[in-house]
Order: sequence, then C-alpha cells, then structure tokens
Amino acid sequence: MKPTFLIFMIAISNLSLKSVNPENRTSLKWDLGYAKTASEIPAKWIPAVVPGAVQLDMAKAEKYEPYFFAEHWKDYLWMEDQFYTYRTLFLKPELNSGERLVFVSKGIDYQFKIFLNGEELLSQEGMFTPVSLDLTDKLKKQNELKIFVFPAPKIYPKPVDRTQASHSVKPAVSYGWDWHPRLIPLGIWDETYLEKRPSSFIEDFHVNYTLNQDLSKAEIKLELSGQNLKGLPFIWTLKDETGQEVLKLEGKTELSFSNPQLWWPHDHGKPYLYTSTIQLLDTSGKVIQTSESKIGFRRIRLVMNEGAWNEPEGFPKTRSVPPAQLEINGRKIFCKGTNWVNPEIFPGIITRERYNELLRLAVEANFNLLRVWGGGIVNKESFFELCDEKGLLVWQEFPLACNNYPDEPHYLSILKQESASIINRVRKHPSLAFWCGGNELFSAWSGMTDQSLALRLLNSQCLELDPNSPFIPTSPLMGMGHGNYVFRDLDPKNKEEVFSNMARAHYTAYTEFGMPAPASVEVLKTIIPKEELWAPKPGTSWESHHAYKAWVGNTWLCQDIIEDYFGVSSSLEELVANGQLIQGEGYKCIYEEARRQKPYCSMATNWCYDEPWPTAANNSLISYPSIPKPGFYAVKNACRPVLASAKFSKFKWTEGETFFADLWMLSDLPSDLPAGKVKIKLVAGTSEVPILSWDYNPMKANVNQAGPTARCKLPAWSTDRFKVILEVEDHPEYNSEYTFAYQPRSVEFKRTTPVMNQ
Amino acid sequence: MKPTFLIFMIAISNLSLKSVNPENRTSLKWDLGYAKTASEIPAKWIPAVVPGAVQLDMAKAEKYEPYFFAEHWKDYLWMEDQFYTYRTLFLKPELNSGERLVFVSKGIDYQFKIFLNGEELLSQEGMFTPVSLDLTDKLKKQNELKIFVFPAPKIYPKPVDRTQASHSVKPAVSYGWDWHPRLIPLGIWDETYLEKRPSSFIEDFHVNYTLNQDLSKAEIKLELSGQNLKGLPFIWTLKDETGQEVLKLEGKTELSFSNPQLWWPHDHGKPYLYTSTIQLLDTSGKVIQTSESKIGFRRIRLVMNEGAWNEPEGFPKTRSVPPAQLEINGRKIFCKGTNWVNPEIFPGIITRERYNELLRLAVEANFNLLRVWGGGIVNKESFFELCDEKGLLVWQEFPLACNNYPDEPHYLSILKQESASIINRVRKHPSLAFWCGGNELFSAWSGMTDQSLALRLLNSQCLELDPNSPFIPTSPLMGMGHGNYVFRDLDPKNKEEVFSNMARAHYTAYTEFGMPAPASVEVLKTIIPKEELWAPKPGTSWESHHAYKAWVGNTWLCQDIIEDYFGVSSSLEELVANGQLIQGEGYKCIYEEARRQKPYCSMATNWCYDEPWPTAANNSLISYPSIPKPGFYAVKNACRPVLASAKFSKFKWTEGETFFADLWMLSDLPSDLPAGKVKIKLVAGTSEVPILSWDYNPMKANVNQAGPTARCKLPAWSTDRFKVILEVEDHPEYNSEYTFAYQPRSVEFKRTTPVMNQ
Repeated sequence: MKPTFLIFMIAISNLSLKSVNPENRTSLKWDLGYAKTASEIPAKWIPAVVPGAVQLDMAKAEKYEPYFFAEHWKDYLWMEDQFYTYRTLFLKPELNSGERLVFVSKGIDYQFKIFLNGEELLSQEGMFTPVSLDLTDKLKKQNELKIFVFPAPKIYPKPVDRTQASHSVKPAVSYGWDWHPRLIPLGIWDETYLEKRPSSFIEDFHVNYTLNQDLSKAEIKLELSGQNLKGLPFIWTLKDETGQEVLKLEGKTELSFSNPQLWWPHDHGKPYLYTSTIQLLDTSGKVIQTSESKIGFRRIRLVMNEGAWNEPEGFPKTRSVPPAQLEINGRKIFCKGTNWVNPEIFPGIITRERYNELLRLAVEANFNLLRVWGGGIVNKESFFELCDEKGLLVWQEFPLACNNYPDEPHYLSILKQESASIINRVRKHPSLAFWCGGNELFSAWSGMTDQSLALRLLNSQCLELDPNSPFIPTSPLMGMGHGNYVFRDLDPKNKEEVFSNMARAHYTAYTEFGMPAPASVEVLKTIIPKEELWAPKPGTSWESHHAYKAWVGNTWLCQDIIEDYFGVSSSLEELVANGQLIQGEGYKCIYEEARRQKPYCSMATNWCYDEPWPTAANNSLISYPSIPKPGFYAVKNACRPVLASAKFSKFKWTEGETFFADLWMLSDLPSDLPAGKVKIKLVAGTSEVPILSWDYNPMKANVNQAGPTARCKLPAWSTDRFKVILEVEDHPEYNSEYTFAYQPRSVEFKRTTPVMNQ
Repeated sequence: MKPTFLIFMIAISNLSLKSVNPENRTSLKWDLGYAKTASEIPAKWIPAVVPGAVQLDMAKAEKYEPYFFAEHWKDYLWMEDQFYTYRTLFLKPELNSGERLVFVSKGIDYQFKIFLNGEELLSQEGMFTPVSLDLTDKLKKQNELKIFVFPAPKIYPKPVDRTQASHSVKPAVSYGWDWHPRLIPLGIWDETYLEKRPSSFIEDFHVNYTLNQDLSKAEIKLELSGQNLKGLPFIWTLKDETGQEVLKLEGKTELSFSNPQLWWPHDHGKPYLYTSTIQLLDTSGKVIQTSESKIGFRRIRLVMNEGAWNEPEGFPKTRSVPPAQLEINGRKIFCKGTNWVNPEIFPGIITRERYNELLRLAVEANFNLLRVWGGGIVNKESFFELCDEKGLLVWQEFPLACNNYPDEPHYLSILKQESASIINRVRKHPSLAFWCGGNELFSAWSGMTDQSLALRLLNSQCLELDPNSPFIPTSPLMGMGHGNYVFRDLDPKNKEEVFSNMARAHYTAYTEFGMPAPASVEVLKTIIPKEELWAPKPGTSWESHHAYKAWVGNTWLCQDIIEDYFGVSSSLEELVANGQLIQGEGYKCIYEEARRQKPYCSMATNWCYDEPWPTAANNSLISYPSIPKPGFYAVKNACRPVLASAKFSKFKWTEGETFFADLWMLSDLPSDLPAGKVKIKLVAGTSEVPILSWDYNPMKANVNQAGPTARCKLPAWSTDRFKVILEVEDHPEYNSEYTFAYQPRSVEFKRTTPVMNQ
C-alpha cells in the first residue's frame, strides 16, 4: 500500500468533555506494519484504526474469524509477540508566530518509541502516561511519524499465564483469567492527534480544594502547569448548573468558596457538578487558551466500621481491623456495588457510549459504588465523566493483580511514572471514592506483603498527589471478605451453601462474592457452534468460554450443583434457566445479608458486573456487551433503598419440614420511614400459604429493623420449587420474592450426573 | 547572679564517636531563668547544666527534694508551664580567613527560639531536629546567645494526661503513664557547642549501600551535604577491624564492594564494623575536614512467617497477616528481646555510660532485639553506636503512642521535619532493624487508622529516605499480640493464667507482654518513706510509684494474686519474694511458649525492660537505674540459644493430682546439635521425684524438637511450692528449672486478702 500524505486540516476531535480549543486538533490516518524482530522492516502496511489495537487491525486486514466465536481467539495468540510499527505522513501545517505543533496521544500500549522523520523523539514504557511531543522544531515540509510498539511485556516465556505480567504496569487480565481469554492488547488505545498550540499553553489544570469540617466552605487552590506560563494572566470562573457564574478569580490561585452545593452519589442526593473554566491570556489581555471541565465538591473518608473498635477482645490483643466504612459529606453510607472489569478485551475500542450503557444499568441496579478491579485498565476519561454525572462512586485500583510485583528499580520507576499520570488525571473527578493498590495482593496466590515497595510507593504517591482521597493497599483488607464464588462450596467434604456461609460470616465489607450463571441461550448461540451447543462438554467452545476448568472444579457452568437441586436438565433452555435462577437467589442472599449486618458491615460489591467478551458461564450480572442476566434484576431488587427482606437457612426444603425465615425491613434511605405491615406467604403453583403478618415500627433513616421469625410446616406440593413472597401493605415497591427448591416425599429425582469432585 | 563572658578556648567535647575535628568545638556555660509569661523577663538566673533539663537546674538551685523519693515529683509539676530562657555570653573568637563560627545543638526540647545579641535567628518546634546556626556575620566582640524555651506543648489544659501531647512530636510518656510520673522535660537535651568550621564543610555524610541477592557485593553510593562543597575534592576510605584499608574512593561517589564482612546480631555472628573516613580537601589538596564513623553491612527484611500464607482458610477470605519474621543476611531469626523505655525521665542526663550498662545487660539476657517504644524519645547517637558494637537489633518507633495524632497541616509539617531528622540520623546504623510508626495506634484507645495521614506520611518518609529498611505503621500489627500484662487475667469472671492463655494463643509475634513484680526491698527503701513501707497501701508513695491504680485493678503490685497462690504475706520481704517469683515464672512461660511456636511465631519482646525512675512495682525486668530483678535472670535463661523446656498447663497443683508437662528442646542456634538426653524430676525441699528420661534426636540448626509428655501423681509434701527440674546429660548449660505453687490436702491457706475486683 502506497503511503499518502495527510493534508493538515481543521478536524473536530472532541472525544473528551474537556474542550481545549478542539478546532486546533487534527486526527491522523495511520498504517500499521509488523515484524518478527525489532530490526526487521515490516513487509507490508495495512490500515490502522486509532484508537484501537494492532490485533483488530490485523484481523480486519487478514480476514480473521471473530475472536469471540468458538475458539478463534487462539488464532490471535501469535500476535502478542510481534513488533509493530504505526506510520503516518503529514504536511507541515501553517503555524502562526510562536505557535507550536504538538503530537498528543493519551495512551499507547505498552512499550514504544516515537520517531519523526527517522529521528527518535521518545522512548516510553507505560500505557497510562500520555504523550505530548512538541514537533515544531523538527518539522520538514513532508513528515513521517512512526510509533514503534514492542511485543507484549513478559518476564519470561513460560509459564504462559498472568505471572508474565508481574514486572510491568500492564493490566494482567489479558494474559488469561478465568473469564478472559488470553488476548493481550497492543497499540494506540486512546485519543491521538496533532494539535496546534500557542507558545504559552496550560497542559494540566487542577482545582484542588479542601472542605472544612462542617462542609460549609471549600478552600480552593488552583494548580496550573504547562509551557511558558510565567507572568501571563489567567482567569478562572466557576459556574453552577444553571450557568450562573458563582466564582471568578483573576491572577490569584487561592480563594474560599462558601456553601458549595455538594456532590452526592445518586442514591443520597444530587451529583451536583459545577463548570470550571480556565482562560489563559497573553500580555495584551487576549484569550489564547480556554479549557473547561466539571468539578464536584465532596469530602470522602474511610472511617471505622461501627463496632469494630470493640474488636478484638481479650489478650494477647492484636490491632483492630482497618476502616472500610465510606463516609461522604459526613454521612456514613452503605456501599452497594459491583466489581467493574474491562468492558472490552481491547480497550482501544471502548467508547463513551459503551461506558454509558453499562453505567446507566449500574444506576438502574441501585448500585452506588463500582470497584474498578486492578486486573484491568484505568478507564478513559469519559468513564469518570459519566460516573461524575450519574453519581456513581469509583473505587479505583492501580494495575496490579494477583501477582508478586517486585522490589525492583526498573519496575518501580515505571510504576511511579504511571501512577503519577493516573492520579493526576483521576483525582479531578468527584466520583473517585478512594485509591487501592490492586487486587488480592496480600493473599497467598499473589505473595506481596505490606513491605512490598510497590505498595509503599503507591501509598506515598497518593499521599503526595491526592492527600484528600483515602488509600488502601489492596482488597481484601483484614476484615473484608472475598468469595465464595459459587452457590455451594466446591469442597465435597463441605458443600456449604451460601445461606449458612453468610449467616456465619462477620466482615466489615464483602468486596467480592460471585454466583455463576450460564449466559442466556441467545448469547450462547452467538459464541458456540451449533453442534457443540447441547449438551455442554469440556474440551469444546464451552471450555474456551469459561464453562469448564475456569476456576476450580466445574466452574463456571456448575451443572452438577444446578442438577443436584433440580434434577437432570432435559434441554439447554432448562439448564440455563435453573442456573440463572440459582445465581439470582444466591446474589440476593448475599446482598441482603450484608445489608442486615449493617452498620458493622458497610459494603457489598459482587464479582463481577460486566465482561469483556461473551462468556458461556460467568459470575457476571451482564453478558457481553450489555445484556442483563436475570440475576441482574434479582440484585437490583436486593439493592433497592428500602425493601422487605428475609433471612433463610438453606435452599432445598422437603415436604413436611418446618420452613422458617427471619423477617427484616431494610433501609439505606437517608430519611425516616413510617410504620407499616409485611405479610409473608409461600406460593407453589396456584397454592398459596400465608404464614405471618408483621407490623413494623417507624424506621429511622439508614437503619434496618429486625422482625419475627416466620414458621410453617411445608405442605405436600407436586413441584420442584416454591416461592416465598413478602408483601408490604400499600408499598408494593418494597415487596420481595425468593425461590427455593422443594422435595416432595412422593417423588425422587433421578440423579444421573455424578456428585461433583468425587 | 552576674553574667560572665566565656573566654573562647580549645575544649574537647568528644561526646560522640564520630569525631569531626573535636578541637574546634567549645562548650558553653549557660544560665537559666524562667517566667510565667512569654513577655516577662526572668527575675533571676541560675546555673544550667547542658545537656540537661530545666527541671533539674531548678531543683538544684532551689533545693527541691529528689523527684524519685516519696511523692516529691508533684512539687515539680508547675514547672511544665513556665517560659524558660537559657543565656550564655562569649567573646568573639579569632577566626582564620573564611572560617565560620557555628552554634550547634543536637537537641532542644521542645519549642524554642534562638537569639544572638537580641536578634532572633531561629524559631523551631521539634526536639529531634538539630540546630546548626552560622553566627559569623552577626558576631560582636561580646556576644549574648539566648535560647527561649516555650512551656510543654498541650493541645488543651485538661484533662491532664497523655492526650495533651496528641498534636505534637513530643514523646507522650512524660505526660504520665502507668509506670512514669507526670514530669515533662524541657530544655537543651543533647550535645550543644560552638564550632569553628572551615568555609567548606560536610554537615552530613551517608554511606548508602544495597547488598545484592547473594550478599556477595555491596553497591555503595556516598551522599554528602554541607556548605560550599561544589568542586572540592574529597577522599573516602573504608578500613576493616584490623585497621587495614579495604576501599578508597577519590572524587567519585559510587563503587562496588565485593565480599564485605557482614554485620550480625551477636547471637548469630559477629557484629562486624568497618571504619569509614571522609576527608574534605581544599583546591590545593590540603585536608580541611575529617569525619569518621562506623558502618556495618547487612540486609534486613520482614518476610512472611512460616505457615502464615496458609491462613485464613475458607470463604469469605480476608487477607493474610502482615509479615513479622525478621530475616537478616538471608537468615530467618527468632527475635528475643524487650521493650526499651527511656532510662531517665530527663533524657538530657542520659550518658553513653548509662546506655552501656543497660545494653550490656541486654546482651547478657540473650536478647537480640530492642523495641524502642514510641512513647519515649529516639535515643541519642551513643545508644545506636553501642547497639552497633554489641550486635543488638533496634526496632525504632517514631514518637507517637496511644494518641490520635491528627490529619492537621501544622502537626504533619512538624512530623515531616522531625521524622526526616530522625531517619537521616538513624539509618546509618546497622543495628536499625526496622521503622515503626508508633505504639498501639490502631487500637481503640488510640483511634488512629490506616487512613491517618501521619502514618501514611511516615511510611512515605521512610520509603524516600531509607527504602532498604522495613516499615510497619504500628504495633501490634494484625496477627501480632500485645498483652496480657498480668500473671492471671484481672477479669474476675475469667482469671485465666498465663499458662493456658499462651497455650491458646496463635500469633506471629508477641511484641508486648508483661508480668509485674515489686522492686526489691533495697530499692523500695530508697523511694518509699519508712513509715509507709509496710504494709503497702493505696494513696501513699506506693501508689505514686505505680503499685496501685497504675493500669487496671490493683496493678502493678497485684498483691491479691500473689497471696492467692502463697497465702497472706507476713512481711515486705515475703511479699516481694513471691511477687518476683511469679514474675519470673510468668515470663519464662511466655518466652518459652513463643519459642515453641516457632517458626510461625518469630518474636517475643516483653513489656518492659528498664524504667526511667524507681517504681515500687512494674513489669520491668530491671529496676532503676540498672538493678536486675530476679525475673531478669529467669528471662535470661528462657532466652538461651539452647535449652531444655517444658510446657505446663497451670501454676498451682494439689496433692494427689496428676502433674504433667510436655518436654521440648529449644534451639535458636545457627548450627546443628547432636542428640542427647533430658531428665525431668520434681523437687520439694529435700524430696526428689524423677519422672521421665527423654532421648532427643540430633537437632537441626534453628529448629526445636518436641518430646513426650511427662506425668506424675503428686505426692504429699508439706510445702507451698515445688520445683520442676530439667537436666540435660553432659550439658548443664541447657538445664532448666521452674517453680509451682503446691496445695497439700492437709493445709488450708488462710485467705485474708479479698479476691480482686469483687
């Protein structure tokens, strides 16, 4: 393919909310080549989509089958080890006196060099540190810009697993996870363009503020950095949501803001955003740059969970657990949320719209917190902008997960660079709840400890650059729980169900817990060849899509558990329906029990929310790309601000047995509620058995109420399941419904599937 | 008193090992005055001893009774609220061309201003940041230097307790503790002098090194700072213990040192020290400054305790505990040690000799680790120099203890300054094992959390200035135990003895545990007026000296517990003897059980070693100033590198009951041991009952061996106690001996003392 020179033109590239004179930006047309070695010249050039990923360009040009169907992802594996070159040609644009031409890329994944007309201008490791290269003095009439991208970083060639990523600040998930195929993105993954800039230019602008004790005043300090700013005047204004200017500051960088409207998560108030505008002026007073962004004022702390100071008791006495109670604007809130994972295997193709559909569903699910898990990327700006707008809190992890990241100077220097870039960008967003070093780092399978320099460095970086945001080194902290990830323990000697497991549990926060379910049949048909669809088997596309051997045992399909309760499935539809039912019932159990354990318990975030490609079975609530499973709606109900809830002891009940359940009213509402009445009944087919009616007392804001235990001898039904229904008089929006497996005396299920793990 | 001008003269003030041309130093003669307000002029001047404390000067001049006798310490209380002025007069010395006259003080406690001839030259808060003031350009012929010292810092006037110190970097102990009277030192507390310095001068010099993985090479990097060093040549040499020069570096700052002799704690090898000499030359090559210090090469890490990665089990799963296993030069060692507290209430009077007598005893006690508790000061240089020489490891805490130190900008700025001074000084010593934020900060009575900015700051400071040393935020960490502090639990519903308490305990480290004992009668006579000596009572000097109401219940005398075992004491001598016996037996139980729990358990450091004044009863092993209690020798025996040991279930046994004990051989020795034979027998008076003989197998280095359980029906003795004796054939140095209370059937003890807490 013959290269053509791009004519420099005015191009709108307003991919970000923050509009920095977008008319000065020009997007580029890129080609891509690859070679087996660093010195080899690419044999051919193919068109590249930027931002994107080299694999997607290769697949398109070479007509690869889609990676998400069957086992085609295996065809892409070789691409992780190639050397890639992006190339673009452009003519020198006309520049006014003093004007500069700057090459900007917000992210290139992962190690790369940049050449202009054959001269190396930059060598960088790290995908989160943006590139901003002033090309002006090197420009010729015709210019060739090249980005040379190294193969995926690996500390060793084998084993081929996530540990290969343990010495780099590259998200580990793409090296293969129990719900992610091995596909390691490479290439330009975020906005990239040429920009004409005045000789004086603000590159970074931060409205640093601290709210006083009673939240009545924000002490604001503006922080500007960029080129040749010394001595130049600037004007900063703050407008409220009506467009009214509420603050104006000329030349100075500090002021007090009285009675700011506070930003709240959506379920506790309004996520109020102001518009901040900074204008740079030249010495004659002419505006030479304008930059706009949203800011929200809130104070976030991690404070001690109620009752946690009373532990431990007795001697010898160890320390109390670390705090896991989020307090926002002085109010302790119960965090209901989920673990967010990359919504795409290739982050280059994530758009604002893609984020928006998932975040809209998160609000619909009554979530107020997203844990952005450290195995994946730190999301693009539009993610945080949308969270700011929608009132979703973000627990942001650094890209460390399940590895032992070393006390090694080179790694630490890259981590320092990358974390500074991440913190300086994300700290501007009111949705940021707190920082976290990464996932499960203080667990045996990772092997890091409090002494690991990487985590001490991240703590130090966050303290220096964003002291007002809490920092935790990892999750789980002591007193927080991760797991289980199945409805019933996989240990054949244990087999404990989620109901009794959660009743025994006593944690400050449940920050990961999973319930697997198969994807819906429609989704399965798009990823598994027709001939493999029924019955599911290991060694087929089912396994590639994580139905088998994904975690331990027969995860994630867990057909044996499903059929243990409901008998052998006669069709894919039946298996899927029963599996999805169990997911929903299991998740409801955990979310509602975590809420009952409030205020000692302060958080419940399931593993996981979304997925980066369509799995056949997974703990996710949403199938790729944005298709809620039935479990999503179960969780949505369990996370309503107010609901009638019941605590159960087990899932399967037998005819004649005394069924029992503890009644509760749960409220996370920031306001009081009047008294009311709950009725509980059992329903099997058309048979209804009322058990109890409970008159609950008026409820204080954000406080639950425990009720009586309802008991009932189970009648004879000819069914394999029944429902428990809680009805709240005059408040059907508080009603709840649970399904249980039922064993009539007269019927024996035929168990043709073997008991798991035996 | 009429002031006299000090004639400048050559004075040797070689208080420190590091000899920086000591002939250039001149000590000063100081007077002291005080006033009730800052503006008031002192009414009179009294002689001051420097270093010292204002209280000691006042007491001497005004003939106060000694603070350690009876309750005279109360007479000193008013002094904490006065404003003090130190004053000295001196004539301008002759200075060679370019020479500077610098006022140096290594420590002034706590907030102060310095004036020369009426002009304020410095205002400082913080006792750990040395002062180095160039006076040259301000000198007159006759000069007056004044140091104005503010009253003791207090966040509020009431309550009068340690919380008053919660917003300052002043050790909290002097505000009153359960073994420390309220006496808050103020004034010049470390070496202070005038020094003639060349115009170019090295003020700080650090031999920074990192040992490689197999310890065969040290990568050395010299760090110099001072005045006008740019362009001047310097020579660094390193000499071994024989005086042989092994390294020489001219002008450069980096080199590799192959096969350095390693520094070891005394029980694991030789605490090898090299002599480092830095010489500063002028441009003509003439030596203008020589500075000498000792350095040792060792690598220290905190690594995971053996077995700790296997915990916790099951789901939900929280994190594994933080590491508490010290590894030095690649070898995991069991730390046997103690909690070091200020050896004087007024640190200004601590001398090298005072440190030496206590540190000599620490080595005698077979201790290898001192936890320098955060309630007290960071010790003077001579402390660390002696630890370096003697091979004692130092767990160094910052001056934070049992308070909630705030997220407050002023406090944090002083903490940053003080911690930098502390780290830069102490990091040079091979005896430094690790840093710790302070004492019991993550416990309910302190109220700090992992989010506290002070602790995040200290972590960050240590990482920046001394990344090769571990840092822990506080003690206890999760998995470490503090307490109990009594032989038998004080809760009347519990009363659990140390024997069963320790048998149940499962901790990575026992970093505080106490056993109270009264001081010996000779000591008691020096502090308690004769008429109060017998019987001890609350509300007397006994209480002032911590025998009553010190901690909880009847601590620290615990007469009820003592008499519960041995009956009502008929004399002071009997009470003291029984109390001291119980201390020793309790301490042996804990040290030996902690060692039996090796390798999961890695440390045992009792509370506490020494004391800053003579207490009547305390957990200390050593009475003030350096008088070992019998418990000291019990601990010394329990900490021998090799010993026969037994595990017991309780303290008091009854005639006819089956006595039993589990036999062990304990070894922390870094080398293997041959097989041997242990015999166990019971001894009461002249009656000896052999029980069992055990042939133990050859023992691997640093590994214990569990033996059989010895059982024996207890015969009828007419005694209230018996001994258990373990004899190791051919190795009497491994023998052990324990004492137990005995209850013959025929005798009933008369209980005239009430049962505690009822």
